[in-house]
Amino acid sequence: LTGRSTSAIVSRVNDATGARARLVGAAARLFLTRSYHAVGVDELCTAAGVRKGSFYHFFPTKADLAKAVVDHHADALWARLRPAGTVASAAERLRLVADAIGDTQAGFEERFGKVVGCPFGNLAAELAAADEPLRLHLQAVFAHWQHRLTELCRQAADEGTLRAGTDPALLARILLAQYQGLILLAKTDHASAAQIAPALHEILDRYLPERVRP
Amino acid sequence: LTGRSTSAIVSRVNDATGARARLVGAAARLFLTRSYHAVGVDELCTAAGVRKGSFYHFFPTKADLAKAVVDHHADALWARLRPAGTVASAAERLRLVADAIGDTQAGFEERFGKVVGCPFGNLAAELAAADEPLRLHLQAVFAHWQHRLTELCRQAADEGTLRAGTDPALLARILLAQYQGLILLAKTDHASAAQIAPALHEILDRYLPERVRP
Repeated sequence: LTGRSTSAIVSRVNDATGARARLVGAAARLFLTRSYHAVGVDELCTAAGVRKGSFYHFFPTKADLAKAVVDHHADALWARLRPAGTVASAAERLRLVADAIGDTQAGFEERFGKVVGCPFGNLAAELAAADEPLRLHLQAVFAHWQHRLTELCRQAADEGTLRAGTDPALLARILLAQYQGLILLAKTDHASAAQIAPALHEILDRYLPERVRP
Repeated sequence: LTGRSTSAIVSRVNDATGARARLVGAAARLFLTRSYHAVGVDELCTAAGVRKGSFYHFFPTKADLAKAVVDHHADALWARLRPAGTVASAAERLRLVADAIGDTQAGFEERFGKVVGCPFGNLAAELAAADEPLRLHLQAVFAHWQHRLTELCRQAADEGTLRAGTDPALLARILLAQYQGLILLAKTDHASAAQIAPALHEILDRYLPERVRP
């Protein structure tokens, strides 16, 4: 669903020495704290403690590594968005997504000393115009994310907690855009990650009038 | 206010051959349609029809050119946000800002065949973590933009058109984030620029309940 190729999954399974996983981890960190273009293959290999031959064994190009980095972050995001043990209402789950977005950025802030941006949004802004396969890969992640939000908004409508007259698909788009925009602004002006979730809840207050927080 | 240096203004005044303006124009186009890192000084000089010596006369570094590109786009934005001849209400002006954001992206779409992103947002996502002077420059532009939106939201409150209980500064942040997020998503999934303004008006409907469109 996220556009991950079968060969990438096979490579991951065959990563007995952990070289592939170390490359993905190093790239995830360096792309977030610098940018995709600012980090070269040599530096990625050094940071991962991997020889260049191994790099090209796993990733024919740096763009292929970027796709694996996207999949790595997407796996973590889908795991966070999975409903917890007890079945919550859709309204609660939309609130929990907002908290998860804020928590993820707070985690980056703790690790890197500042908000460093959304892993998907950063790569999309830098590469969507320049690298078509990577754009398609990121488009699939955003489409899946937006689809899950649309489903939650539809479910909230069914449960009678969504503001009457709201288009669930449009609200899903607005929420995803709000995540991306707030994170980008915090990255740019070094606002605290703690500002992100409250702004998202403010928007949700407008669409889920009966605010039920866990 | 946008952090533009006096020396940059002087250089602009002394640009008798138009070389500086051509460099800024070429960089604005190439940074938007590719990215900052993807375009080198040689390519910028060729595109602008300017010798490399002239480049470094005007811009000690490529990052200085990026600052000039930011100023170029900021000047255009502030001109668009200036109130028209007749004084409109703050609510109307917030609606007009939403239309201006959509129109700007529609202009890029017409020129480049697709939504290519916000000139500020693109550079911020790519460079805020990697280039501190450029981050500060972009932070100043976003701060000014957010300040203007805050003033409009405050004025709407004074005019009785803002939803009761709304924090004008928070709403300004939300609106700026919404512009950035919607543009980034459209850039990534090649959505039409025509989708941007309606989504912004949907948010405004929640905060300016008495919708008055010109």
